[in-house]
Amino acid sequence: MRNFDFYSPTYFVFGKDREAETGRYVKRFGGSRVLVVYGGQSAKRSGLLDRIMACLKEENLYAVELGGVKPNPRSGLVYEGIDLCRREKIDFILAVGGGSVIDTAKAIAIGVPYDGDFWDFFSGKVPEQALPVGTVLTIAASGSEGSPDSIITNEKTLEKNGAEADCLRPCFSVLDPALTESLPAYQTACGITDIMAHTFERYFTNTPDVEVTDRMLEGVLLAMLHEGRRVMDDPHNYEARANIMWAGMVCHNDIMGVGRQQDWNSHHLEHVLSAKYDCAHGAGLAVIMPAWMHYCAEHGGEKRLAQMAVRVFGCQMDFDEPKRTALEGIEAFRAFLRSIGMPLTFAEIGADPADIPELVEMNHIGDGKTGGYIGLDKQAHFDIYNFAAGSCVPET
Amino acid sequence: MRNFDFYSPTYFVFGKDREAETGRYVKRFGGSRVLVVYGGQSAKRSGLLDRIMACLKEENLYAVELGGVKPNPRSGLVYEGIDLCRREKIDFILAVGGGSVIDTAKAIAIGVPYDGDFWDFFSGKVPEQALPVGTVLTIAASGSEGSPDSIITNEKTLEKNGAEADCLRPCFSVLDPALTESLPAYQTACGITDIMAHTFERYFTNTPDVEVTDRMLEGVLLAMLHEGRRVMDDPHNYEARANIMWAGMVCHNDIMGVGRQQDWNSHHLEHVLSAKYDCAHGAGLAVIMPAWMHYCAEHGGEKRLAQMAVRVFGCQMDFDEPKRTALEGIEAFRAFLRSIGMPLTFAEIGADPADIPELVEMNHIGDGKTGGYIGLDKQAHFDIYNFAAGSCVPET
Repeated sequence: MRNFDFYSPTYFVFGKDREAETGRYVKRFGGSRVLVVYGGQSAKRSGLLDRIMACLKEENLYAVELGGVKPNPRSGLVYEGIDLCRREKIDFILAVGGGSVIDTAKAIAIGVPYDGDFWDFFSGKVPEQALPVGTVLTIAASGSEGSPDSIITNEKTLEKNGAEADCLRPCFSVLDPALTESLPAYQTACGITDIMAHTFERYFTNTPDVEVTDRMLEGVLLAMLHEGRRVMDDPHNYEARANIMWAGMVCHNDIMGVGRQQDWNSHHLEHVLSAKYDCAHGAGLAVIMPAWMHYCAEHGGEKRLAQMAVRVFGCQMDFDEPKRTALEGIEAFRAFLRSIGMPLTFAEIGADPADIPELVEMNHIGDGKTGGYIGLDKQAHFDIYNFAAGSCVPET
Repeated sequence: MRNFDFYSPTYFVFGKDREAETGRYVKRFGGSRVLVVYGGQSAKRSGLLDRIMACLKEENLYAVELGGVKPNPRSGLVYEGIDLCRREKIDFILAVGGGSVIDTAKAIAIGVPYDGDFWDFFSGKVPEQALPVGTVLTIAASGSEGSPDSIITNEKTLEKNGAEADCLRPCFSVLDPALTESLPAYQTACGITDIMAHTFERYFTNTPDVEVTDRMLEGVLLAMLHEGRRVMDDPHNYEARANIMWAGMVCHNDIMGVGRQQDWNSHHLEHVLSAKYDCAHGAGLAVIMPAWMHYCAEHGGEKRLAQMAVRVFGCQMDFDEPKRTALEGIEAFRAFLRSIGMPLTFAEIGADPADIPELVEMNHIGDGKTGGYIGLDKQAHFDIYNFAAGSCVPET
């Protein structure tokens, strides 16, 4: 196990109707003039936004709204939010929504106290201060409610980049699973895929002797298989949604990712898909992850894939040919993704195989390699996109 | 899943030689005049205490030592520490040791700003403020390095009581697995037992639909079986010690205990053993836990025990008679405890069956019931102690 630091100071307020306490927590964490960031019309239509504004008012907090965050959130709204905060002397940012809303709130939070262009922090500069951010989560997927990350797409360049720093961890997050019950099935399934991806990105590692985090990650995956199926069968299963919501947080606040090299190739490979085709991040991951796993199985990574197959998907170990077990596990994963309604092919997310050279260019690989588990050079990126585009067509 | 709050703001500094950074973290968390609490001679002999004092000095921090904490820490040293802190105008308490040292440091930390007797907080009063506490952990066992708890034995009454509050969570904890390599095998095994107990106390619940925390708890138990055996085979296996050390934290900072009723009967039943006989807490748990599990299997609790047997100990499920599977799992657990050198009988920890009525009285049950999974009345306490004292004699 490697040396590491772990720090997750977010206060989690979990359960039915807990969003009614939001105002109290904004106050507790020092807010008095609040920017409320949200997405589209659903927060308005559902009445959630009104309830949040009312509970802020009850605590005598001043609040300004900023709506319009879209999936794969864009830099434009961040600039707008920074201006608004400065004009209104905002001292606290409250995100009401999913990962896109939270990531936008975080980007605004580091932009406000910074003299330069906030994009600097998405180009390598490490943020050291930020306005405090609180969240009311409405989609279980990104883990941004407990993570130190924000991911924003630059409108001009279509680059989809991340910023990471402890000051980006929310000071509190309200997690009410009931708020996710109204999500369309497709979005629920995309969230399940994203949560499993965050788990896999940590699971696939070359660091030896990480049994305790391995076993915890496998535990989350097992729970996701079970609860994922339950929630797809019954979208109003509060209990399944509660398990998924907590899984989304624990798999991404990094308590199970510490002390080990992580991979993140699937995310690298996916980001250009959702940036170019504006597909859901989870959908892009469903297309990329099994293809990436196939590549790893063929290029020396079969041992951990076999471990995943046995421990998570209940496959029988082939002690003579571990690769067979690995491939069986990948097929089981693909079957699960298909069972929850996820796309598995380029065509299903509106991607065009003819764009593959451009996608590879967008990954800025140069002569290097990306990722941790199996390093991927330019050719490997080609191969994986090609595999995802062609030979990996599922039999449904 | 129940509604819950979860807050674990401790900064963890994990890995080889990280204790050299202790001074920096004391400063970061606001300390300038430091009380360094430690146990017996081992911290001195090993040179650890000198290294810690040196790194505090490097940061120009004023430091006073308070040694002499014993296992099952006593109230006397807490009073002494409170006086010393007031006299020396201490603003930060640094614990260098295991759970007993950390718990003593925490008790001093709530006592200093309080006008009354610190024992009030161990008799039901909830502490609201405390001096900041940092820790340098030398024993993986209690989880106190990341928990909001402290457990102290009252010298006069022999009551072993706990206090719990967010203000008791350490602001930072340094976890260097190498510091645990010099522990005697018996103490290492006691720590393994304690960590597994903290996991089981959360695992055994009547709250339905807690799959994600169930699976994570099972993951930690699986890792403990593997790493526990490795470290007993080779006390200098740093990697095994690292896995065990992180397991000790994650199983007790409550990230896997949220949203569910917990049990804690084994701890209740054990505390009077270590209070009366001054045996190691882990040793008392090894005697009590299997006996408690047997009682549960016989009194309606077989379902979760069978789940444990199958998922953690790899037993085959007997679908016709789940209780058989439950009992098989308990036997596997006892065999593991015996394999790492733990006692399983009253005699082995110096306890006398004739004392059982007194032990039951010490538990202050009255007409009520203790615990969460299977509520235990007075008679049940008798039965479990009797079982532990007699019929549970192992064949070695």
